[in-house]
Formats: sequence, structure tokens, C-alpha cells
Amino acid sequence: MTGRLTKLAALLATILIGAATARAAGPLASWNEGPARQAILNFVRSATDSASPEFVPPAERIATFDQDGTLWVEQPVYPQVLYAIDQVPALVEKCPDLKNQEPFRTILAGNLEAVASLPVQDFEKLFEATTAGMTVEEYSASVRTWLAKARNARWNRPFTDLAYQPMRELLEFLRTNGFKTYIVTGSGQDFVRVYSAETYGVPPEQVVGSADATRFGYDKDGKPSLTKVPKVLLNDVFGGKPEGIHLMIGRRPHAAVGNSTGDQQMLEYTKAGAGARLAMLVLHDDPEREYAYGPARGLPDSRIGTFTQGLYDEASKSGWTVISMKNDWKRIFDFEE
Amino acid sequence: MTGRLTKLAALLATILIGAATARAAGPLASWNEGPARQAILNFVRSATDSASPEFVPPAERIATFDQDGTLWVEQPVYPQVLYAIDQVPALVEKCPDLKNQEPFRTILAGNLEAVASLPVQDFEKLFEATTAGMTVEEYSASVRTWLAKARNARWNRPFTDLAYQPMRELLEFLRTNGFKTYIVTGSGQDFVRVYSAETYGVPPEQVVGSADATRFGYDKDGKPSLTKVPKVLLNDVFGGKPEGIHLMIGRRPHAAVGNSTGDQQMLEYTKAGAGARLAMLVLHDDPEREYAYGPARGLPDSRIGTFTQGLYDEASKSGWTVISMKNDWKRIFDFEE
Repeated sequence: MTGRLTKLAALLATILIGAATARAAGPLASWNEGPARQAILNFVRSATDSASPEFVPPAERIATFDQDGTLWVEQPVYPQVLYAIDQVPALVEKCPDLKNQEPFRTILAGNLEAVASLPVQDFEKLFEATTAGMTVEEYSASVRTWLAKARNARWNRPFTDLAYQPMRELLEFLRTNGFKTYIVTGSGQDFVRVYSAETYGVPPEQVVGSADATRFGYDKDGKPSLTKVPKVLLNDVFGGKPEGIHLMIGRRPHAAVGNSTGDQQMLEYTKAGAGARLAMLVLHDDPEREYAYGPARGLPDSRIGTFTQGLYDEASKSGWTVISMKNDWKRIFDFEE
Repeated sequence: MTGRLTKLAALLATILIGAATARAAGPLASWNEGPARQAILNFVRSATDSASPEFVPPAERIATFDQDGTLWVEQPVYPQVLYAIDQVPALVEKCPDLKNQEPFRTILAGNLEAVASLPVQDFEKLFEATTAGMTVEEYSASVRTWLAKARNARWNRPFTDLAYQPMRELLEFLRTNGFKTYIVTGSGQDFVRVYSAETYGVPPEQVVGSADATRFGYDKDGKPSLTKVPKVLLNDVFGGKPEGIHLMIGRRPHAAVGNSTGDQQMLEYTKAGAGARLAMLVLHDDPEREYAYGPARGLPDSRIGTFTQGLYDEASKSGWTVISMKNDWKRIFDFEE
């Protein structure tokens, strides 16, 4: 036993030394020195130092991240919308009547800008029409197939390549410090769960998102199955974010990061508790390397939730940290160098 | 650095030797040798041996447990119902009209057997009336206060003392083998989350249960808050269990344990996937040390979901393991010796 333990201790020492060496590059390697990086470091120090008056016990270390525009590119249209659009031709073939109904008519006309301007209700209709009646496994398989083939038009890369490298480092840095990291997204949780582990290191059970109901039943062979039904259960934007967090996590987060008014309530809820707290907003102010929109202009805001001037003012009033993509991030994507 | 690492290695060695000594008693110490214990050991061996054709990758090791009647005593009435009953006098003082309405009239008459026979809708009404308008923090605090004072009539002990010791060992054994353990309960998740970590080692974010909606808003001081609203969001029994599992976990469990027809669909869903699978039902057949009901008779079944003869037959047909409390458990509670 003692011999085995000595070997184990030696192995652990090797791993720890390895980790220390890897960390020589430092955590948050893609972040420039500046107020955003400093806010993160200060927060983690206060949260993890047991002598700190703001110490957060490990079990309570919860961090929640919006996805679209916070963890990956949301312009010109949310990737989940592009997935749904790509399902429309097959759907219309099965139900030709849809051709003359919105939002299918606009989608089939092929003008993405017009699609992006459709009202929220039309997106719900689109999502429900393209998923209803599928088993949850059929849906995941369909998303997986699409992700493997689909390419973002501007970078000609898979959408999952367009995750922000500094955010992946922030997720990892928080996890290294004992935080459970969650995605809390207005996109469908069943969509995001397909790639969350591989892309962000966040397992499916730590993805909270908008969700339609499912119905338990048996397929024609008597096999138990869950089928997607067109009934909204969770609408994970605005007040729906803290509500979804309470339902799915049951704890108030200590850190929250977003990029729009759709995340404002999550940030407010996060900041309203005791102990160390971090609230951050990603500002899209880099038209060269990514996009400029919201207060930085240049592009219309994303459709659900916007980074308004009001939100910007709220941030400075409430002690939220604004992340300038242009100034705070050394690089945006993993594939850049 | 090296000095610190040596100390760390020594500390780890101490912990590992301690763990090895504690484990000398063996896992599942309160389980008798027999088919139930053997089924657990076989399942864990198949799931964790990377050479096994039924190997389950660590990320997919999810185990789900019903609570009432599976992890703790549910007779003569679910503890959550007793909590709600104890809130009725204060409620009636505020709203005297309720005195003449069901279920409040029956509750105030003080006959527990009559209360236990009320229809499910009356329980929903009871839960909603005793929680609506509370913030989620007020509700948790109220449950915590009640649990500290309330005593089970038969054993004169706190309800959390009436968790089944063999099940706590099973939860721990699965966790030791890399499983994430979840409670999937017909009781309210906000109720169970108050004590799940301390009683079962299951953190709040791993409790899936019935749930009413909450509403995000601001209190009179402008502080963001979540208030409980009387609108059922999840009804976590029967088909609602696999539906809740999909919503909150997003993975099909590899092990599921229940004790009634309310758990049947969860067991069916669990068994219908590939790799190692374990489905178990607790049979209450020990009137001396606990209760006898269901196929073992003696007491009426619990109200929501029952262990019927049909379920018993289904178990042997489907390869589910029936746990006989009388034969499979050396002791029922931690406080026995």
C-alpha cells in the first residue's frame, strides 16, 4: 500500500509541477492588462481567499454566461436561426402550404437581413415548426450534422470555431478556482447542449436555455421516448434568465457575464447578494476583428436584447465591468495568431 | 515550490490512507449480501471497467433517485405536506375565508388520514396558497426553520433523520465511482433543495422536482428578487420525471431508483439506452422497522404513485431489481445500531 501511495504522490507531484509550468503563461493569456482583466483577478482573489470578508464557499461558486454575443459571434443572425432556416426547404416539401405563410415566405426569399428583422413570435414559430414531433435524440443528431457542415459566411469556418478565445480562458480560469460554470442562453438549450462540452468545457447539464416542452411516450416498437412539442416552457431572456437560473440551479450566481439588455436582470440578480460578485458586459467595438454594434454602432443590434446606451450607463452606475473587445482582448479567436 | 509540493503530496497520502481505512468496512455496509447488493456491484463494475462492453464514459455517469419512499420515509404523509399543513393556521388568520374552503377545512379538522385522502388538486392548492408571494429566500428560510423544529410522530426525530442509511451509502458509492447523483422528486424542488446537500450529499443544482414558476421583479427598496407564483411549471411524476430529467440534465440516466408507479417511466427511460443500466424499486415490506405497503400491504399506498402488483410484475419482466427493505437492508436508519 505504502509503495503504491508513494508512486501516486510522485505522479501527483508531476501533474502539479506540469500545471505550474503551464500556468507560467498565466491564466487569461488572451486578455490585455487593463480594468477588465484586473476586475476578474480581483474577484477571484476575494472569492477564494478564506481570509477575505467576501470569501465564497466552494459549493456556492456559480458563474453564469450568456452565449450569443458573449461566448461566440451572434452577427449577422444567431446560429440557431441559421440552423432552423436550413431545415425549412425539407419542411416546406412535406407541408407545401407553409410556403405562403410567415416566417417561411421571408426565409425562402433568402434575404437574411429581412429574416433578422422578423418579430420574435416568428422565430418561435420557426423553431417549433422545425422541431415538433422529433425525438430529442433525432434533434441532437440533426444539429450535430448541421454543425459539422455549416460554415459562417465571413470566416468560412464552423460556427463553433467562432467562440471567443478570451471567454474560453475565463471559463477555464473560473473552473480552476472551483467555480461551476453555466451557460444561460436565450437560444434553445437542446441546441447549445450539442456542442457546449467540446466548445466551452460546459457539460449539457450546465446549460440553461430557452426550452420547449417534451412529451414522454412510446414509439411504434414500444420503446420509451421523449418527443419535442411546440409549447414554450422557458423563455430565457430578460427576467427569464434569473427565473431559469433559480429553476435549474437553485443558487444565486456570484459571477455573470452578458452583452445585452436581455442579460441585464441576470446581472442585477447576481450583484444583489453578499460575498464577492462579478458582473460583466461584452461591448462589441471591434469592427476590424469582429463587429461594432450597440453603443459602438456600425451594425444594428441583435434582435433579442440590445446593448443600449442605457445599459452602458447602468453598468457604470452598478459597478459592472464593460469588456471592450478592441482594448481588452489580445485575440478574439483561437485560430488567429 | 518543491517544498510546498512535497507537503501537499504528504497531505494527499494521509487523506488517501484515511480513505482506504474507512473503506475497510466496504461500501454498502448497511446492505446484506443478496441480489440487490449484487446488482449494484455488477452494474458499477460494468459501468466503470474500460474493458467492459457496457463501459460508461465518466461524463455520462448520471444516476437519478426518487425521494419520498425511496430515500426517506413517506408515511403516513409526505413531509412536504406536513410542512404546508403547519403553515395553514397563519394563512387562515390572514385570509379567514379559507377556513370554509377545501383543503383548508379538512386540514384544520386535524385528521391526517382524511388529509392524506384529498385529491392531488387539493395538494396543489395547498402548496400554492402557502407559498405564493414569498421570495425564494423567504420560502427556503421558512422550510429550514420548520425542519429544525418538526418531529416525525413515530420516531420523534427530525424528518431528515429518517433518510434511509443504505440509500445514502448507495448515493456515496455511485459518487465514488464517478456518478453525478440527482434527486428527481414529485415533491417541490425548492423544498428538497433546503436539506439535500446535508442529508444526501446532493447539491441543490442536482435536485429536479415539481416546481411552480417564479417571477423576477424588484422589492420596495428596488432590490431584485424572485417571487413564487401559483403556476405549475413542472409536475415531476410519471412521464413528468423523464421530461424533467431531459429539461434539467439533458442526458439519459444510467441508473434510476424509485418505489412507485410515479417512477415507472423514469426507470423505463433509463433502461432504454445502451451501456450499463441499473433500475431499482424499493419495496416497503418491513412493518417492524419501517412500513409495509404496496404489494406487501398493511398500509394504503402513498397517494401519488403506488407500488402495485402490476409494477412488481413489470419489474421482473424488465430486469429491474426489487429492493426488499426487510431482507436487503441490515439497518434502515443511521441512528439504529
